[in-house]
Amino acid sequence: MLLPAEIIKKKRNNLVLTSEEIEFFINSYTQGKIPDYQMSALLMAIYFNGMSPEESVALTSTMLHSGITVDTSSIPGFKVDKHSTGGVGDKTSLILGPVVAAAGVYVPMISGRGLGHTGGTLDKLESIPGFNTQQSLEKFIEITKKIGTCFIGQTKDICPADKKIYALRDVTATVESFPLICASIMSKKIAEGIDGLVLDVKYGTGAFMKSAHDAELLAKDLIHIAKSYGKKITALITSMNQPLGRYAGNVLEVVECVEIMQNKTSLDRFGRDLYEDTRELSLQLSAHMIHLSGKTNSLEEAYTLAKEMLVSGKALEVFKKMCREQGGDLNGLVLPKQKRDVLAPKSGYISSFNVEKVGIAGILLHAGRRKAEDTVNPTSGIEFHVKIGDQVKEGDVIYTILGDEPELFDNAHKTLTESFEIHLQKPADHVLIENIIT
Amino acid sequence: MLLPAEIIKKKRNNLVLTSEEIEFFINSYTQGKIPDYQMSALLMAIYFNGMSPEESVALTSTMLHSGITVDTSSIPGFKVDKHSTGGVGDKTSLILGPVVAAAGVYVPMISGRGLGHTGGTLDKLESIPGFNTQQSLEKFIEITKKIGTCFIGQTKDICPADKKIYALRDVTATVESFPLICASIMSKKIAEGIDGLVLDVKYGTGAFMKSAHDAELLAKDLIHIAKSYGKKITALITSMNQPLGRYAGNVLEVVECVEIMQNKTSLDRFGRDLYEDTRELSLQLSAHMIHLSGKTNSLEEAYTLAKEMLVSGKALEVFKKMCREQGGDLNGLVLPKQKRDVLAPKSGYISSFNVEKVGIAGILLHAGRRKAEDTVNPTSGIEFHVKIGDQVKEGDVIYTILGDEPELFDNAHKTLTESFEIHLQKPADHVLIENIIT
Repeated sequence: MLLPAEIIKKKRNNLVLTSEEIEFFINSYTQGKIPDYQMSALLMAIYFNGMSPEESVALTSTMLHSGITVDTSSIPGFKVDKHSTGGVGDKTSLILGPVVAAAGVYVPMISGRGLGHTGGTLDKLESIPGFNTQQSLEKFIEITKKIGTCFIGQTKDICPADKKIYALRDVTATVESFPLICASIMSKKIAEGIDGLVLDVKYGTGAFMKSAHDAELLAKDLIHIAKSYGKKITALITSMNQPLGRYAGNVLEVVECVEIMQNKTSLDRFGRDLYEDTRELSLQLSAHMIHLSGKTNSLEEAYTLAKEMLVSGKALEVFKKMCREQGGDLNGLVLPKQKRDVLAPKSGYISSFNVEKVGIAGILLHAGRRKAEDTVNPTSGIEFHVKIGDQVKEGDVIYTILGDEPELFDNAHKTLTESFEIHLQKPADHVLIENIIT
Repeated sequence: MLLPAEIIKKKRNNLVLTSEEIEFFINSYTQGKIPDYQMSALLMAIYFNGMSPEESVALTSTMLHSGITVDTSSIPGFKVDKHSTGGVGDKTSLILGPVVAAAGVYVPMISGRGLGHTGGTLDKLESIPGFNTQQSLEKFIEITKKIGTCFIGQTKDICPADKKIYALRDVTATVESFPLICASIMSKKIAEGIDGLVLDVKYGTGAFMKSAHDAELLAKDLIHIAKSYGKKITALITSMNQPLGRYAGNVLEVVECVEIMQNKTSLDRFGRDLYEDTRELSLQLSAHMIHLSGKTNSLEEAYTLAKEMLVSGKALEVFKKMCREQGGDLNGLVLPKQKRDVLAPKSGYISSFNVEKVGIAGILLHAGRRKAEDTVNPTSGIEFHVKIGDQVKEGDVIYTILGDEPELFDNAHKTLTESFEIHLQKPADHVLIENIIT
């Protein structure tokens, strides 16, 4: 007979739990036989003492088997997805799904909503009038087979243990734990029935991991779990030390993605394309996704193929079809009508961003959620006019606040003025992709 | 506005909580406004990160003020109590209460029940037919004033926060935490309205603290809190590497105490009195209690006075009066009728005891409780025939199992045979009192 308090004590004492103990505890909790207060004590003990690779796999496995897994066997060929640990202006899914699908590799994507200072793919897609992210799994498979990609939200049947545990972690300060993060991510991704996964593990002022080193450690843990399930996986360690691309905000990010797929540019006063980093990261991630499928002999070849899909307009075609299949009307996008600029208070070089603060400004504008129950205003957002290393003069525009709730602009303006630094010396070049781990 | 999850996170991140945060969290929890799952997460974070002296005082204070405090102002003179961290055969309260009271210092004692392998004063007293430990606080004060001492159990009005938190700690593996132990002990002791406190902090195989060093650290934390309330306090660091005295078991311990107060001895085959360590520890603790009151000029004088109270029979008189006042009939003690010996499997010196196992054998005999809801059989117990350093021959009696439930003897016998070691070499002398800290 396994006693919950003894299992908590074992983890508290930094001993390794057996798979049987992990299964018993998680399953009993999901079934309501172990109360919240024992689960939260175990979660906090895991926060402090971590988990061995074997424990992490057992935890993932138990969470995976707490619900159904998507049967993708009818989709002929390699199925790949991408997961990002979250950032500000992080909109690559909307581009790479269509790019990779256009290249002939299936991308069945189950995404989440934004929470805290980071955005979510579902919120972005739902800013397209009529877009339905709540498809049945049958429809999900059907659209993926037909178009090559489909974007839906979590269903209650997938990983119910993760849902219950995540809600508890959120209110007990146990979110920031590697093994808990890994099990939560990987159980849901493996439940999708994919063959391969590309991770975008972010670090920096706008990411959960502040350093590239920590991001790499997390990536390695995630990779270990995926490989134990025989999944192909690659992780890109990428910077969230500045917001990605030109916009953060739901409809604004859709606009940015569509324009990139239309081969448009957004040149700033230095002649530099503000879409460049979004485009480049999307292509890099796409290349890795395509390469994992075995479709190409080299990563370079995969990159060339991805770029071709983007430049030729084939990715845009897939995106449009996907929107149509999911009920979305791209011609009906509602753009913001009000704006307020945030100006440089002095001259110098943009040396750093506090990207979390930029994300918080987004929450203040209702572009993001503080709590899961909050609703978002799809029209609100922020335009980024400068990047790290840019030389600005006092009075130059740094950000433009956009939206249709101008009464919110004051608070957002205040937060945004505190979200960047200007120094006299030119900073080191900002590196977007720090490392690639397989 | 204080957010419970933010307070948990702060402690999790090893930051110091303010008194305001501690009060808010504990009071909200006691009032049912913070759920168990957030409290258990905080408790586990405290287990890992500890608390500063200031935090410990704030926690104690909040728990103290969660309920009533006993108004002892009508008792004319110094009021002193003793608290033991718990052991096997630890029965000194029954002697030192009467000794100190006979010496003219008031001992209003609020005690607990046994839990796990350690015994409790209430269970011992309730083995005296009719003895009522559930007196009203008015009656408690009245008896203390009249006799000099009174023993009652916790009431629900004293430290309700501690009751609720302790029940949660018990099922979330958060019992063994210094600041939580300290706040639980000191809030209840300070609520008694005493002026001084002597601590018996035990270490060894039968104690929560395995080493004297750890026991000293706990003692120092307890002393810091008591002093912050202006209480006089002394801690004795004492060994629980062997059971104390001749018996463990409720009525058997009462018999031992009465016989000690009757100046009886219990000579073993080496001519050594098996009551010696119980008597000596009781006198030492009594001496410190008397000395704290300022009644004597030196500890030696206090010890002489305590011994006089014991030898003269004055302590026994107080004990008898106290029993009478609380309804107990000392002539009605029900003694065990069945017994089974545990023999030495080989010749040599008794080198060590696993005292926790001795206590577990007591639980198997129903002399102790596994869970708080269990009931005890007052008649069951174990007689100890040898001490560390004794030379035994194969077949000598080590323990005698006593009781009226012989069907339980097999299991207890098995556990007891595993609870001591015999070596060929004579071990170092066992030291009863390791240190005294003020």
